[in-house]
This record gives sequence, C-alpha cells and structure tokens, in this order.
Amino acid sequence: MVFLRRQDEEKVVARNNQAARLHGMVHALRDMGGITFLTLRTRRGLVQCVCSGREALDGAAEGCAVTAAGVWREEPRAPGGRELAQARLTVLSRPAAPPPVPLAKKKLELHLDTELGLRPVVLRAPRRQAVFRIQAAICRAFREYLQQEEFTEIHTPKIVRTGAEGGANIFRLDYFGKKAFLAQSPQFYKQTMVGVFERVYEIGPVFRAEKHATQRHLNEYTSLDFEMGYIDGFADVMRMEQGFLRRLTAVLEADCAAELALLGVELPRTEEIPAVRFDEIKALAAERYGYSIRDPYDLEPEEEAAIGRYAREVWGSDFVFVTHYPSKKRPFYAMDDPADARYTLSFDLLFRGLEVTTGGQRIHDYAAQVAKMEARGMDPAEFESYLMIHKYGMPPHGGLGIGLERLTMQLCGLDNIRRACLFPRDRTRLEP
Amino acid sequence: MVFLRRQDEEKVVARNNQAARLHGMVHALRDMGGITFLTLRTRRGLVQCVCSGREALDGAAEGCAVTAAGVWREEPRAPGGRELAQARLTVLSRPAAPPPVPLAKKKLELHLDTELGLRPVVLRAPRRQAVFRIQAAICRAFREYLQQEEFTEIHTPKIVRTGAEGGANIFRLDYFGKKAFLAQSPQFYKQTMVGVFERVYEIGPVFRAEKHATQRHLNEYTSLDFEMGYIDGFADVMRMEQGFLRRLTAVLEADCAAELALLGVELPRTEEIPAVRFDEIKALAAERYGYSIRDPYDLEPEEEAAIGRYAREVWGSDFVFVTHYPSKKRPFYAMDDPADARYTLSFDLLFRGLEVTTGGQRIHDYAAQVAKMEARGMDPAEFESYLMIHKYGMPPHGGLGIGLERLTMQLCGLDNIRRACLFPRDRTRLEP
Repeated sequence: MVFLRRQDEEKVVARNNQAARLHGMVHALRDMGGITFLTLRTRRGLVQCVCSGREALDGAAEGCAVTAAGVWREEPRAPGGRELAQARLTVLSRPAAPPPVPLAKKKLELHLDTELGLRPVVLRAPRRQAVFRIQAAICRAFREYLQQEEFTEIHTPKIVRTGAEGGANIFRLDYFGKKAFLAQSPQFYKQTMVGVFERVYEIGPVFRAEKHATQRHLNEYTSLDFEMGYIDGFADVMRMEQGFLRRLTAVLEADCAAELALLGVELPRTEEIPAVRFDEIKALAAERYGYSIRDPYDLEPEEEAAIGRYAREVWGSDFVFVTHYPSKKRPFYAMDDPADARYTLSFDLLFRGLEVTTGGQRIHDYAAQVAKMEARGMDPAEFESYLMIHKYGMPPHGGLGIGLERLTMQLCGLDNIRRACLFPRDRTRLEP
Repeated sequence: MVFLRRQDEEKVVARNNQAARLHGMVHALRDMGGITFLTLRTRRGLVQCVCSGREALDGAAEGCAVTAAGVWREEPRAPGGRELAQARLTVLSRPAAPPPVPLAKKKLELHLDTELGLRPVVLRAPRRQAVFRIQAAICRAFREYLQQEEFTEIHTPKIVRTGAEGGANIFRLDYFGKKAFLAQSPQFYKQTMVGVFERVYEIGPVFRAEKHATQRHLNEYTSLDFEMGYIDGFADVMRMEQGFLRRLTAVLEADCAAELALLGVELPRTEEIPAVRFDEIKALAAERYGYSIRDPYDLEPEEEAAIGRYAREVWGSDFVFVTHYPSKKRPFYAMDDPADARYTLSFDLLFRGLEVTTGGQRIHDYAAQVAKMEARGMDPAEFESYLMIHKYGMPPHGGLGIGLERLTMQLCGLDNIRRACLFPRDRTRLEP
C-alpha cells in the first residue's frame, strides 16, 4: 500500500531562454540539412521545435507522440511567436501507418463523406479542432451564465415511456420486453424540476428519428435546455437567452481568439436583438423579397433564410426572435395567447437565417392543460405522472432548447451541421 | 418589432428593514389567529413570511405559487435567521389538489416504490432537494477542476454500432432498419479525442441493460468520464481523480453547507488516499475479517464492503484505490502489466466500501491492440474505425469513469442508488 498525494501543480508560463519540456504529436517535419523544424500538436496548440542533428530526433516521424526538451526562444514566424530551440526528442509511440490525409495542410478540403469516415484522424487538423474548442466554449458560457442566474443543473432520463414532442420521429427501443422510446427532449422533466428548483438547465443528448437527410438535421444532437419559473411572460425567457448570448461572445473573445481567427469567424452583435411576430415578419420578408407565402402556419427553410436576411439588412442583426407561433404547430404544453388562441406565447430564435432555439411559456394550470390535451384528442391518463406537477401546483414558467450543433454551425460558418458534430448520426451513418 | 435588451441585474443581498419582493411556493402555513406564518420554497431555500389579516394572504394555501412583498427582519428562529415581515401575498397559481405527501414534514419517510411513483412532487421536499443540489455541485467541481487542468469538454454519440464494454448488458435499437446499440460508455470516443485534444472529459448518460435489480445498479446513469494523454502510468490518472476529489470537498464546503448539514453528511478526507494491489487487499481483508476468498479474480459486493471497512479502520480513509485488476476481468483495451500479464495497469476507486470509479491505462500501440483483440477471439475488422487512432498514432494514455449517482449515494449516505437519481430507470421502472 502507498498513499497517493495529489498536489495541484503551478502552471508554468513559458519565458524566453527558459528550459522547457513539453509533449505532443509530430504534426509536420522539415529537414533543412542537419537542422530539422518540427511542428508539434500540443493541447495548447501548435509548437515549433528546432532540432540539430539526427540524434536529437530519436527517429521521430509524422504521427509519433514525443516529448521534447529544449529552450524557449522568441521567433516571430513560429506559431505563438516562439519556438523550442535546441530540442531533443524522445519518441513515446510510433504510428503503424502514415496519416490518410495531409493533416498539416492549411485547409484540408475533403468530401464530407470521406471526412466523416476518417473523422477520428481528421479531427486532429487544427481547423477541425477549432470548431470543437468553440463548441466547448459555448457549453461553458451557457453553464456559467445560468449558474450566475441561480439555475441548478439536472440530469434526466433519455429512455422514456412517452415522447414529449409527439409525431413519428421517435426511436423505439425494447426495454426488458416493454416498449420504450429515446427522449426527443427533456421537456417533461425540466418542467417538473421547475417545481423543485425553480430554475434548471441540462446539456444532454436528444434523439430525433427524422427520415430526411438535410444539411441542418442530425438524428442525435446535443440540446442546451433551460426552464424557469415565475416568468411574467415569454419575453423573460428570451431575455435570459440574450443574456447567455452576450456572455457567449464575451467568453469567445476571451478564450477562443486564436480559433475565431483561424476560422475567420465574425462574432454576432448581441446587445440588442429584434423580436417580431411570426405573421408580421412573414409578410415583411415576403414583400421585401417578392415571393408569396405558401404556408401561413409554418416557416420553410427558405423563408427562415429570407427572414434572417431581412433582420440583417433592415435591423442590422444576425439574430431575430420570431414570436407568437401558430398554436397548431406547437406542442400541447405550449400556452396559447389569451388574446388570440390561434397563436402561442412562444418563439424561435433565428441566427443568420437558421432556427437555433425553440422556446416559450408553458401551461401551468392543471385544468387548462387537461383541456388542451383533450381538445387534441390526447388521453390525459397517459400523462398522469407529467400532469402530477400541474395538479399539485406549478408557478407560471417557460423555457427553451438550443441546438448546440446548429449554434456552432452558424457561428463558425459551416455548410453542413455534420461538420459541427464530432461523430454525427444520420440516416446512413452509425460510426465512427 | 421591438428590440430586446438584456441588462444583467445586480444581485440584491437581503438587508434588515429593507423592503423586498420575492416569490415561491407555499410550503407550510400556520394560522395563529389573525397572524399567519407561511414558509415559502424559493430557489434559495425556505423563507418565512409573516402576514397580518386575511386580506394579506390573497387566499394562499399550500401548493400555491405566490409573490410576497414585505420587509426583511431579523428572526433567529426562522430559516436563514430572518423573515419577511408585513408580507402581502399575491397568488399566481393554485393547485388542483393538496399534495399527496406532507412535503413540510421534517423527515419524509416513504417506501421507495411510493416515493419513486410520486417523485415529481416528493423532490420538492427540502431533504430531497439537498441530494440533487449536492449532485449538481459534484458535476460543477468535476468540470471546474478539469477545465483548470486544460481538459476540453466533448459530446459523443449515445447511439452506436458497437458496444465498448461487450457482454449482454446492452440495449438494442432499430436504427432505420439497421441494428444499433445504446452506448455503455464513451470509451472509444474519449480515447479518440485524446488524439485530438490530449485531455478530454464528458458528463453524459450511459446505458446498461443489467438484468439484476440491486441497490447499486441503474439501467441508465450519468457517467463522469475523462481521458488524458502522455501519462507515465495509471497513477497519473488516479492523481487526477484525487485532485478532483479535493476540489469537490472544497466546493461542497463553500457552496453546500446547508445541504450537508440538513443531510448530516460528513465530508471524506481527500488529502491522501491509500492505493493497494487487488490481490494484496483481498488477502488483507480476508485475513482481518476471517472469511475465505471465493473468487480470486473478482470483488464481490461483500468483499468491497470489507475492503472499505479495512481502509477505514487501518488507514483512516473513506477512499481506497484498488490497483492491478486481473486481466480477464477487464476489457480488451486495458493495458496488461508488462511485469505480469495476468494483471492490468488499472484500478477501481472504492468509496465507503462501494466501487465508484473504474479506470486505467489503455493500449496505445496498434499491433499490441490488434494482438489482444485476436487473443480474445475478437475480429479487429469489426473495430476498424476505433483502431484508426492506434494505426495513425496515439500517445500513451489512460482515463476513468465515475458513476455520478454512486458517488452521490455514498456521499449522502443513501441506502439505495435510486434515491440518488432524479428519475431512476430500473428493470420495472420507465416513468416518471
């Protein structure tokens, strides 16, 4: 038996002329006749190392994992403005084969199918890494902001007996001989937890058995959900989202400057976001861009794009809240507008012409919820454990769900949502 | 169209004799003849309000959501040492029925089945809330610590083509006519991401189709996973876990003092944790407690309990790392001990006699991984996309998975893991 004692180490900041030891994978290697320039991929980014003589290389080749001992030296042409000079390498592991794609190439242009098949390796390319560092920052900003606003994190089941969103796009599962489903959203559970903690959030997977293959749908995605009690109206929910978006741009500026620069991302303005009624913006966009409205109750992708363009051109905003969606297009738990029950107290947030959020106020009154279910031909008895919260009392409340991959895609300017997901699931893709 | 402008509000700290407005649900209500004492459940905990006269109550009853306007006054006997005096209530919503259990009772003793059936409401009881506030703090501590240690957060698929842990305890799924599974762990993906970010973590659901109903198994649970490259050995992984545990106790002390007190939780010491070989501790515990070892290759629950007792009595520790598990009990990706291939470079962490973590060093060499798979009768071609990482180069690496509910259960001294999960899934329970 030994006792383990963990001491937190002080972070060492690199200084010039200071000896250093670091590790990474050999990203690129140029032999300049006796002197070798190596680029290592480290968890802090690319680092240039300079080795003199064969021996200092220890036989390192592209794809090797190495440690490098040397001295920091200022070098404006190197990544990060410095390099590790007089480096001596020790090879820790060697690959069995050279990489299937040139990872060190500045822009790695690959057909999407090729890329996704090789994802485990392609993700090592710096531009691919950047997307997912930004994605991690989105989650961090979401949590930090909601934490500050006194939300409590929850974890709710993904195997469920009843789908929250209804419809056919739900995965079925055999659960010890019983029929079960994969959760389309944490809707029922996050509402339930408003009765417990008043403000809750969850970041987790949701599952949609969408049969279409589009550039903006995944069959499994990560949803950023929150739900809050004691709202005066759904504008409180939109304001909370705006607060998160403001925090997000601040976090990205502070922590992801290199990634934003590498991808050429321009951060959206978040100080003010226009909010406009569904029927109003439909008419405005149709008039401005000269098309006719086909479906007065829905937004088609082309129409979302037109609305995004309108918001950009007329209001100077990358974001636009579209409010008061038609009741028939919203689920049974959405609260209808008391002023006109054909519409709901709900909203979507469009970002650069794509829906990235759906939210709104929910019904909190038991009788009202039962009545709306019955009006839709649903059997309240099937939802007994959900309706428990209404029966025993709920404050007025609302919330939203943000698609993490969609937000990442629009922020990074990607052409397909699969590029914003580490290992995407679509109709034909189950691995890697 | 209107512009939404979100201004972050300053948090108001309650001061005596200051007017305040707050909201919450009526937890308890005592009429003292003209004066009514109400307890509200708010997101910051219980608050006592004092109302004079019928009118000030607005007809509030238990389970109503209300706002209360009044004046803060020092009151040592009230929760938090103060109360809202001269309170005037406005009822925001009324329940359809009184609560099915006495939520305001100090200790709500319910049969587990009754409790789980009524979970959406029972969770409102302060002692139940406390468990899940502590659980949220565990996740926060995990992320904060790993963030500081330069880990990157990832999100990996839960619908997979191949199980990482093998065996029969895997849920099957129809995926557009193809056979798919629910992920038993993010193992393959987190290893893959070590090749990208070097250090990664994920908090997410995992699914185990365990057929036994025990007090320590759930069919869906939340796993705290991390994986790190460039380790010198699996002790680096244990040290990282110890670092997290130290952070955890600090976070709990700082943020959850009220919850710890309510539940009577004594925090474990984390400054030093004994680490002992599997075969050594088996023999030590068997000798001390006078039983004979039945299976030299496994730890039965009773044996885990005995080892926990041994660690407590002999080494004064609630935790014990048990190292060098037998190779035949570990998955194919575990690295065997070069000194004795019957054992692996791996460990479990027991906490108060229960396994809460499994971890270890993984094979990083392509030929070695293929050879171990073949020796186990597995077909490497079936794992092509996983083996890609070994083929194109991986650093030495290792990691672990912590069961969130088990850690919560042991920390809070609960008698069943279902009490440490908001909405548990077991063989018979699919809702709420």
